[in-house]
Amino acid sequence: MNLTQTGMSLTSMLSSELKSDLDAVNGMLRERAASEHVNRIRKVAAHLLGNGGKRLRPLLTLASARLFDYNGQDHILLAAAVEFIHAATLLHDDVVDESEKRRGKLTANLLWNNQSSVLVGDFFFARAFQLMVRASAPRSLAILADASATIAEAEVMQIVAAQNLETDEARYLQIAKGKTATLFSAAAEVGGVVASAYEHETETLAAFGKCFGTSFQIMDDLLDYKGATKSLGKNVGDDFRDRKMTLPVVKAFSAADAAERKFWLRVIKEGEQRDGDFEHALELFKRHGTLEQTYEEAVRWSNEAKERLDGLPSKQPRELLAKLADLILSRAS
Amino acid sequence: MNLTQTGMSLTSMLSSELKSDLDAVNGMLRERAASEHVNRIRKVAAHLLGNGGKRLRPLLTLASARLFDYNGQDHILLAAAVEFIHAATLLHDDVVDESEKRRGKLTANLLWNNQSSVLVGDFFFARAFQLMVRASAPRSLAILADASATIAEAEVMQIVAAQNLETDEARYLQIAKGKTATLFSAAAEVGGVVASAYEHETETLAAFGKCFGTSFQIMDDLLDYKGATKSLGKNVGDDFRDRKMTLPVVKAFSAADAAERKFWLRVIKEGEQRDGDFEHALELFKRHGTLEQTYEEAVRWSNEAKERLDGLPSKQPRELLAKLADLILSRAS
Repeated sequence: MNLTQTGMSLTSMLSSELKSDLDAVNGMLRERAASEHVNRIRKVAAHLLGNGGKRLRPLLTLASARLFDYNGQDHILLAAAVEFIHAATLLHDDVVDESEKRRGKLTANLLWNNQSSVLVGDFFFARAFQLMVRASAPRSLAILADASATIAEAEVMQIVAAQNLETDEARYLQIAKGKTATLFSAAAEVGGVVASAYEHETETLAAFGKCFGTSFQIMDDLLDYKGATKSLGKNVGDDFRDRKMTLPVVKAFSAADAAERKFWLRVIKEGEQRDGDFEHALELFKRHGTLEQTYEEAVRWSNEAKERLDGLPSKQPRELLAKLADLILSRAS
Repeated sequence: MNLTQTGMSLTSMLSSELKSDLDAVNGMLRERAASEHVNRIRKVAAHLLGNGGKRLRPLLTLASARLFDYNGQDHILLAAAVEFIHAATLLHDDVVDESEKRRGKLTANLLWNNQSSVLVGDFFFARAFQLMVRASAPRSLAILADASATIAEAEVMQIVAAQNLETDEARYLQIAKGKTATLFSAAAEVGGVVASAYEHETETLAAFGKCFGTSFQIMDDLLDYKGATKSLGKNVGDDFRDRKMTLPVVKAFSAADAAERKFWLRVIKEGEQRDGDFEHALELFKRHGTLEQTYEEAVRWSNEAKERLDGLPSKQPRELLAKLADLILSRAS
C-alpha cells in the first residue's frame, strides 16, 4: 500500500517507544532479507522492502504488544515475520495478477522474471517462519500458520471468483477477509499473545484487526477505480482489466438494468473490453452511487474496528490503533 | 520422482509398522490437502499427491523415528509436513521451469494455470507449517524452517546459474545440496528429534539424509539425459532445453575441446538450439564417458550415505535406510 501523502502524519503519531520498535523491525527486515549466497534475493528484497511501505501490519503487532506493557524483544521478531509474510504474498500476487506496478515502481516480476518472484516469495515466507520460531510465543506460531493457510485459500477462491458475475457481497467479503483481513487480525493478535494478554483481550485484538483489514481491502478496491495513478502507486483500472469481482462491480451489477447487465456480462464475464469501457463503468458507478456506497462500507468496518477497542486498556497505543483505523479511510481521497 | 518399476519392491521392504505409519501419512495428506471452501485446491492436490509419489522423504522421517523406538504419533505429523513442503516446491518448480510433465502426467500449471500452481503451493507450505506446529517437537520447527529458507535460496541460485557455463562441480553440488538434499536431511533429522535421539545421532541422521539427497539429485539429473520418457515420467531433455548446468553438462564442458566448447556456448549460453543438438550432446557425453562418471558420482554419495548409518542402532529401520540408498541408484536404469 502507499500512504505517501499521509506518511508524515503517520510518523508523527508514533510514540518514541514505537518509533524505536519500528526502526528495529526495519533493521531486522534488512538483515534477514539479505542472502549470503544469492545477490538476486538481496536485489528483489531491497526493491520490495526498501520502498516506502508504511509497515501497517507490523505497527498493529507492536502497538498491541505495547498496549499490554510488553518489555521484551520478541514483538520485533513477530512484527518482522508478519511483514515477511505480507511481502511474500505481494510477490506471489504480482505473478498471479501479472501486474506491472506496485507502490509506484515496476513490480519485481517485470524487472526480473516470474521465477524470481515465486522463489524470493518462498524465501520470504521461510524467513517469516524462522523469525516466528525464534520468538518465545508458541501460540503465535499456530496463529500465523493458520493465517497463512487462510490467505492462500482465499487467494485461490479469488481467482475462481474472478470473471464470475454471480459473486455477491457475502462472497466478496469472505474473500476480502480471507486474503487481507486475516493477516491484520493475526498481526494484532500475536502482539497481545507475546505480551501475555488475557484470552478475551487477544480475541478483541484479533477482531479489531479483522474489521480494520476489511476496511483496508474495501478502500484498496475502491481506489482501483477512484484513485489517480500517481498517488495510488499502481495503475488505476487494473482490477477492471483483470475482470475482478471487487465490491464496486458487485454493487453495480446487482443494481444494473438489462442494458447495464449486458455491459457487465461483456466486459467481466466474456472479457471483451474496448476503448471507453472503463470510463463507461465509472459512469454506471456514478449513476448508482456505487463508489459512495463502497466508501460507506469501508467507513462502517473502520468504525466497527474502533468500537472493538473499547474492550482494551485505555492507553496511548490504543489511541494509535484508533487513529490508524481513521487513517486508512483517508488514503489518496 | 517416479519409482514405478521399483514400487513393488519398495512396499515389500517395509515392516508392518512402517507400512501402517505410511498409510497414516497418506491419510493425513489427503485430509489436510482438502479445502473446505475451495474445490480448486482439492483438485490440484488430488492431482499431485494422489499419483504414485513414493513418499521417500516421509519414509526417512518415519524410519528415523522408529529407529529410536518412538511410539507416539507426532512423527506422522512431521512426515506429512515434509511431504507438503516437497509438494509445494514441486508446484513452484513447475511454474519456474514451465515444465509440461511431472510424474508422467501433465503438470498442474498447464492443466489449470500458473496462478493455481503458485497459490496452491503456498497453501501446501502453510499446511506443512500447521502440521509442524501441532507436533510436540520444537527443535523440528527450527530445522524445517531453516531447510525451507535454504531450499528457496538454492532455487534462486539455480536460476542465476542456469545458462552460465562457468558453473563448476562445486557450484553444482552446492545447488543440488541446497535445493534437494536439504529436505532429505531435515526429514531424517526430525525423525530422530521427535524420538528424542541424542544430538550426535540426529546429526548422523542429518548427514545421512544430506548424502542420500545429493545422490538422488545427481541420479535425477542423469536420468534427464539417460532415461526413456515413459519410464522417467517427465520429458527427457528438459534440462537441456532449459539450458540447465546439471552435472553431465558441467563435466562435458570441462572436458571439451575447442569445437565442443563452441557447441556448448551456442546451446547453453546463447540458447540457440537446433534439431539434432540434443543427440549431439549425447554423443559428446559418450565420447568423454560423462554419463558413466555422473553415475559413479551418484554411487559415491549413496555409499557415503550408507557409511553414515554405522553410527546408528543396528535395527530393522536402519536396514531400510540402507536399502533406500541402494534403491535410488536403480531408478529407471
